[in-house]
Amino acid sequence: MNVVLFGLGSMGFSIALNMLKGGHKVWGVDVDADKVAALVAQGGEPTVYSDHLADIDAVVLTVVNEAQVTCVLFDDPCLCDQLHEHSIIICLSTVSPEFARVTEQKLQHKNLTYLDCPMSGAAARAKSGELTLMASGNENAIARVKGIFDSISANVFNLGSAAGLGSAMKATNQLLAGVHIMAMAEAMAFGRSQGISFERFMEVIPKCAGTSWILENRAPTILSGDYTPKSTVDIWPKDLGIIQKIAEGTGQNIPITRAALQRYNDAIAGGLASEDDAAVVKTYLNELGIED
Amino acid sequence: MNVVLFGLGSMGFSIALNMLKGGHKVWGVDVDADKVAALVAQGGEPTVYSDHLADIDAVVLTVVNEAQVTCVLFDDPCLCDQLHEHSIIICLSTVSPEFARVTEQKLQHKNLTYLDCPMSGAAARAKSGELTLMASGNENAIARVKGIFDSISANVFNLGSAAGLGSAMKATNQLLAGVHIMAMAEAMAFGRSQGISFERFMEVIPKCAGTSWILENRAPTILSGDYTPKSTVDIWPKDLGIIQKIAEGTGQNIPITRAALQRYNDAIAGGLASEDDAAVVKTYLNELGIED
Repeated sequence: MNVVLFGLGSMGFSIALNMLKGGHKVWGVDVDADKVAALVAQGGEPTVYSDHLADIDAVVLTVVNEAQVTCVLFDDPCLCDQLHEHSIIICLSTVSPEFARVTEQKLQHKNLTYLDCPMSGAAARAKSGELTLMASGNENAIARVKGIFDSISANVFNLGSAAGLGSAMKATNQLLAGVHIMAMAEAMAFGRSQGISFERFMEVIPKCAGTSWILENRAPTILSGDYTPKSTVDIWPKDLGIIQKIAEGTGQNIPITRAALQRYNDAIAGGLASEDDAAVVKTYLNELGIED
Repeated sequence: MNVVLFGLGSMGFSIALNMLKGGHKVWGVDVDADKVAALVAQGGEPTVYSDHLADIDAVVLTVVNEAQVTCVLFDDPCLCDQLHEHSIIICLSTVSPEFARVTEQKLQHKNLTYLDCPMSGAAARAKSGELTLMASGNENAIARVKGIFDSISANVFNLGSAAGLGSAMKATNQLLAGVHIMAMAEAMAFGRSQGISFERFMEVIPKCAGTSWILENRAPTILSGDYTPKSTVDIWPKDLGIIQKIAEGTGQNIPITRAALQRYNDAIAGGLASEDDAAVVKTYLNELGIED
């Protein structure tokens, strides 16, 4: 299929590469021209996507947030006014369920199909083409883009025919992942204060009931001391903020999520916004006076 | 080896059975005479352990808390005054590192060896003989009881020659496990409020970055709706209380643990103390007005 992908960040670039491996034509778009050039060097289309609008089957969004999704689809020049009616917009970015529902409606008015399709699996699985996709939206459209999904994912869950359900599942997953990162940091710092080295922690805890997918994925970063970002700290106030906003709207109590969100804000106040999210352990270690 | 085991609860009874399978002689002791009789029916020693004190190699403690450990070892009749000097006391119960250190010292004064040896793996792994043991204490003693450890565990970590390190690792593990149970409950209730059924949650999340050992172990209980306890809610204020007490002593900030501890206390205030710990989800569902 012919795909335009917006957002060549750590996830988006790997996803674009796997689409190329899957035999699709991919135009990459990013504010960083070097990333676009890097994709072209690896087989991405060398021309400008806007010269090929008649041939585009799918628009894939791997941008950072709701504002960027809106910008790509609706801002001047309004991409969605230029696309063919058969085009499918696949939003892999994390957005709120409400934003997904509203965007689906706005695109329906232009006879375009929006798939609410957030992903899980972090940079490692984006790279290996083994993401988990939480898709919701028009069933025929989901079937039509199967070839694209197959090239980037190991699991595709079809959560229903309306946008919003995919993002609701993603929010639920982010609640867990965001809390698990912070619990890992709190536990590793607590252990250190009690004579448990990070190495010992990593030797034992993965064999115990306290382990998590996140712990086994992120704790090695803490052991390495290299916080070059795969996923940055400042993603979390955005993702947990989506949950907090929903919870405020429904009046539900989410004290664990709120405690974690506060802690990410503490980490950002401490200058860690652009580091890998495993760096939140530094907030704890600083408070304990432990040099990492 | 000849073993006396104190505490035939859900963990202790399975452990005693696996020791029997491993070829050891086991005297079981519990305030509940039915449990003792049940162990005898499965091959436990039919006599009273106090008639065989000269032959006891190891005392295994699988009691509920520090008070019960103290009661077994030091209260009238003082067991530790009756044991041979070659006897090894193996404490599998969750206690604070400080309690482990003090108990080791008290027993050293009586020329007895104390192994600080908490376990992880929940009822399922106690039953299958695949516990993880976090052992610390005299190295020769750890070597001498290898046959006992082999009969009940899949992993034995030797964390050092002083009591307290095993319990420090266990506390670190409980911090994670206790937070992960509550995060699971918060996420499942949040998902339900957004149209995600428990079944859908369980289909998708184990394939995503938000999964944890605890989630895969406990969420099926929530799907079943059967909260017959394997591990009760009221274990958690005890275990997280150990962490809170240490943190207060050292002045360290543990906001995620504190939020979870508060939530376990909320669940107990709601009458859930003796239910399986997965029942904490009911606190969230009640607040949302969702019938389970």
